[in-house]
Amino acid sequence: MYDCTNFVIKTVWLEYPDVEPTMKKIGAPPTSKKADGSPSYTIPAIYDDSTGTAIADSALIAEYLDETYPSTPRLIPPGTHALQGAFRELFYSKLMPLVARLVVVNVPSMLPTPRSIEYFNKRRSEDLGVSTLEALRVPPEEKDGEWDKVKDVFGIVNALMKDGDTWVMGDTPSFADFVLASWGATVRSMYGKESAEWKRIMSWDEGRWERLMMAVEKYSAVPTL
Amino acid sequence: MYDCTNFVIKTVWLEYPDVEPTMKKIGAPPTSKKADGSPSYTIPAIYDDSTGTAIADSALIAEYLDETYPSTPRLIPPGTHALQGAFRELFYSKLMPLVARLVVVNVPSMLPTPRSIEYFNKRRSEDLGVSTLEALRVPPEEKDGEWDKVKDVFGIVNALMKDGDTWVMGDTPSFADFVLASWGATVRSMYGKESAEWKRIMSWDEGRWERLMMAVEKYSAVPTL
Repeated sequence: MYDCTNFVIKTVWLEYPDVEPTMKKIGAPPTSKKADGSPSYTIPAIYDDSTGTAIADSALIAEYLDETYPSTPRLIPPGTHALQGAFRELFYSKLMPLVARLVVVNVPSMLPTPRSIEYFNKRRSEDLGVSTLEALRVPPEEKDGEWDKVKDVFGIVNALMKDGDTWVMGDTPSFADFVLASWGATVRSMYGKESAEWKRIMSWDEGRWERLMMAVEKYSAVPTL
Repeated sequence: MYDCTNFVIKTVWLEYPDVEPTMKKIGAPPTSKKADGSPSYTIPAIYDDSTGTAIADSALIAEYLDETYPSTPRLIPPGTHALQGAFRELFYSKLMPLVARLVVVNVPSMLPTPRSIEYFNKRRSEDLGVSTLEALRVPPEEKDGEWDKVKDVFGIVNALMKDGDTWVMGDTPSFADFVLASWGATVRSMYGKESAEWKRIMSWDEGRWERLMMAVEKYSAVPTL
């Protein structure tokens, strides 16, 4: 764990239907608009009670922490604001269409509660272009193919990085590494450390992502689930 | 023009059918593979006769120049190799599907020669998912819609950059700026400085791209066409 002696970090996990009311309660602004033009509230978000500030969107959170706590490691080194944003946009634009089919209904240990399922079927499903959560279920014979597509997305990043580098920026960890590692951590949390899915990712690109996950571990303020 | 007193730069323009034989002649390696697995040769490429080196692919050229001529401005500042690559990948992956319909047959002053048209129809058309060059022609009533899509791509980059910054990295020009400016220069060359198309781009995002084009002008080693 990163030395955060002066910080007390409390993590709160939210179910789908609790995101919007909780963001409104802490004063975190919406991060985008829904299809109907109304504000869309998303997580992750932080509430910093030493300054009374609430922020949503991982890139905005990173910038806030860099500015507010300049003596801690910087997530976005000077001059790289737009490049870090481009990295996230590239990775998300390739990965997001695949994510829905790899999580939630397809992970037996992580089935959402009935109220989350109800909320999802009413509200979130249209964002993903399906009518119900159940429609995202991947038949067993298609799973390998879905994972191969995820492998290709990580392969794009692998091709951009120099051989032997652990961090996207070479010598120093930055926002981009945590964009990658957060998806590794998501799979590890959902499927478990002993799962074939987790071991699959760790084997890709000659173990590059396993090395990244090990390297980010000391910065983790959230206990591994 | 950038001060390149010690360099003599000669620009050679190539037609489609001359790319592969010229790259082979100067010894520039292929940059990717064609659908059938055979090597694909592309431009831009450079031949540096002071070292006898031939390189294709704009990012590889940039890295070569940074390493070989360290006293000139760096295109890829230390640590930004993968981030600059992600920027190019993001911009190209959004823009490339639109480019074919904005150029070539749709620019009366730039119609390729008969031998380029013949080559294109035989070899390049399948890369673009069409049977002939002519199939790329955009009906007049669809042109505005096509340009609006290009505007959206530049809008993504605009949203990533900080207000008021001319360069993607803030204080310093880098590879990413030339990725953007090269598309501006392409439109300016093809349609002309007085064209509605060029003025359209210059009006986007509160004149951000006009400022960028003015700022890169002094680095241009190629006379404006």
